[in-house]
Amino acid sequence: MTTENGLATGTPDSSVTFINVFEIAADELDAFVDKWEQRARLMRDKPGFIDSRMHRARSSDSRFQLVNVSHWRSQEAWEAATADPEFSSRTRAAREETKQPITPNPAVYDVVVELTAP
Amino acid sequence: MTTENGLATGTPDSSVTFINVFEIAADELDAFVDKWEQRARLMRDKPGFIDSRMHRARSSDSRFQLVNVSHWRSQEAWEAATADPEFSSRTRAAREETKQPITPNPAVYDVVVELTAP
Repeated sequence: MTTENGLATGTPDSSVTFINVFEIAADELDAFVDKWEQRARLMRDKPGFIDSRMHRARSSDSRFQLVNVSHWRSQEAWEAATADPEFSSRTRAAREETKQPITPNPAVYDVVVELTAP
Repeated sequence: MTTENGLATGTPDSSVTFINVFEIAADELDAFVDKWEQRARLMRDKPGFIDSRMHRARSSDSRFQLVNVSHWRSQEAWEAATADPEFSSRTRAAREETKQPITPNPAVYDVVVELTAP
């Protein structure tokens, strides 16, 4: 799924994967996931939303305790949804409420290799 | 999907999500993805493998250029598969071949929130 110039392309239907890798202290996890879920529910009703899963590490030793993987019909749909002022203000508030800093690392991805069980 | 003591639990069928967040230089990307795909094909035939997707960031400015998300029937199946000596030696070789260091951040995750479009 790469073009001749090596740039990753979208799938034929232009859907896109949004991944956010969080660096967060262990004692903030439960409260953060609760607030995150409230914000994610705002996203669910937006045009172009497909699905979203928040993953939590089984081991507290893992460097990245939370990883969100979401699918959207297009990058434009995702950008329009996240531009919602209510979503932005809740995201800002959630960051300000935490005792220790939480570093989100959000980015838009294409699937370049896909394998399924034979 | 958390127990009373706050530990994340597996889904009822005990399946598990394995996520590997890679820190890698932009000019290593194409070669690394090719080699990774070869190793991932070894995994596909192992008992308990469900599926695997390698995601590549659309922007070269994103901190994490590659994120692999794989699903396995159980943590034990995943551990048994990655203990394969051929897989281990290829993984080691792939790291030694790169000009700049590649940092993988592998961990096992449970899904704690799941949302789908209404």
